[in-house]
Amino acid sequence: MKRTAFFISDGTGITAETLGQSLLAQFENISFTKLTRPYIDTVEKARAMVQQINNAAVSDGARPIIFDTIVNREIRAILDQSNGFMIDIFSTFLSPLEQELCAESSYSVGKSHSMMHNANYMQRIEAVNFALENDDGARTQHYDKADLILVGVSRCGKTPTCLYMALQFGIRAANYPLTEEDMERLQLPASLKAQKNKLFGLTIDPDRLSAIRHERRPNSRYASFAQCEFEVREVESLFRRENLPSINSTHFSVEEIAAKILVEKGVERRLK
Amino acid sequence: MKRTAFFISDGTGITAETLGQSLLAQFENISFTKLTRPYIDTVEKARAMVQQINNAAVSDGARPIIFDTIVNREIRAILDQSNGFMIDIFSTFLSPLEQELCAESSYSVGKSHSMMHNANYMQRIEAVNFALENDDGARTQHYDKADLILVGVSRCGKTPTCLYMALQFGIRAANYPLTEEDMERLQLPASLKAQKNKLFGLTIDPDRLSAIRHERRPNSRYASFAQCEFEVREVESLFRRENLPSINSTHFSVEEIAAKILVEKGVERRLK
Repeated sequence: MKRTAFFISDGTGITAETLGQSLLAQFENISFTKLTRPYIDTVEKARAMVQQINNAAVSDGARPIIFDTIVNREIRAILDQSNGFMIDIFSTFLSPLEQELCAESSYSVGKSHSMMHNANYMQRIEAVNFALENDDGARTQHYDKADLILVGVSRCGKTPTCLYMALQFGIRAANYPLTEEDMERLQLPASLKAQKNKLFGLTIDPDRLSAIRHERRPNSRYASFAQCEFEVREVESLFRRENLPSINSTHFSVEEIAAKILVEKGVERRLK
Repeated sequence: MKRTAFFISDGTGITAETLGQSLLAQFENISFTKLTRPYIDTVEKARAMVQQINNAAVSDGARPIIFDTIVNREIRAILDQSNGFMIDIFSTFLSPLEQELCAESSYSVGKSHSMMHNANYMQRIEAVNFALENDDGARTQHYDKADLILVGVSRCGKTPTCLYMALQFGIRAANYPLTEEDMERLQLPASLKAQKNKLFGLTIDPDRLSAIRHERRPNSRYASFAQCEFEVREVESLFRRENLPSINSTHFSVEEIAAKILVEKGVERRLK
């Protein structure tokens, strides 16, 4: 069975997309073609959208599922006439919220709003710069300014996790790759020891690590299963010895790893 | 007026947080204390959560707003007994979706699911690596593998936008900083000309650029308003001359810039 799903908004479409993805993921046996259509903010674009929805309805032989966060009433009225099954996110929740908060929403007065907040923007940019400049152990002298420092073997997922936390939450996360030298010394380097309360370990299954490393350096010693197994074993034993909290990244997405780290370390989001 | 809002989940909390943020943003005159509480997945954590909600109700003198995506019924039943105003996202939308799709959701059978998809994971990691390795004009020989190449003056927001598109959508985006030399030649460098259909221009208001550059190199010529104004004027005229699509990043968030670029270039998300 195949169905098309549209995430439609007159803004970025992030809310419609995030909620829609999350709801559709609950139907594991249905295969969805998912299409995000942001900035549907004119009558012309809305009419073209209706056409696209109706075409999908014909070719699927079933009506598409529409998740929308359209604020403009005229646009919404046009979309309502498509052959889709509409899930109107804002209208569902805003009226109970208005009652509870005893306040009118900008939605009900038909006014869209921008997500831009100057303070948040600078916070995120600085967090991204921090992650980039303190990536891969490049510098260790700014760890005092870090919210978190991820440690683990090369290619276990430290960099994407740091960047995600920077962009999504404004968290300043550095990362340090534990090298064979660190492992042989059987201890944390001094630069990390001084910031022990910020450390969080990432680990990974050796076969997965080997697969990832083979993508980078095919058939190298670096990518060999034996080497990966050795490094992972040493690092995990270092984590245990130093009593560092850690997580095995193998079966988790970047979002899941980031969320788990923040919970475990009790670090709150910096974006408002 | 002050209210506390909780985004609660037995998973990452991303859906509850994204939807909750987006709904609360519609109430511009109310100041919310927003707290994300992921992985509330045991009876003990749920009970502690209820306590935290009830404490906030007392100190605010108003009941907190709860956005939740709890799948486990036992946990939900505990949270239902708090003094919060519950917006239960999954239960609101899943039953109409089940009817429309003639299928049971994992939610209604009480089974949580992971967001992990192996193919998506590799796609994102590769996109992040691509963005990092092709950041800031570091290399230009892999532009044939890029989905997009952002061009603009130094510090106009290219890097965070590329990283966001990589992490969020699995898009491979490179970026190239237009230098004074490129401007004086009044033309695009050869490496960019060969990939003209992938280019997208970012521009920025000179005063904003100057403020951002002052954070990096205070009181430098690089950060001076005159220099920023000169560079922006030259780059904008280059965009016009070369007929490049472009966007002024000054008043938009990273999400908004990314969404606008994908729409304009007709690039679809690579993550499923």
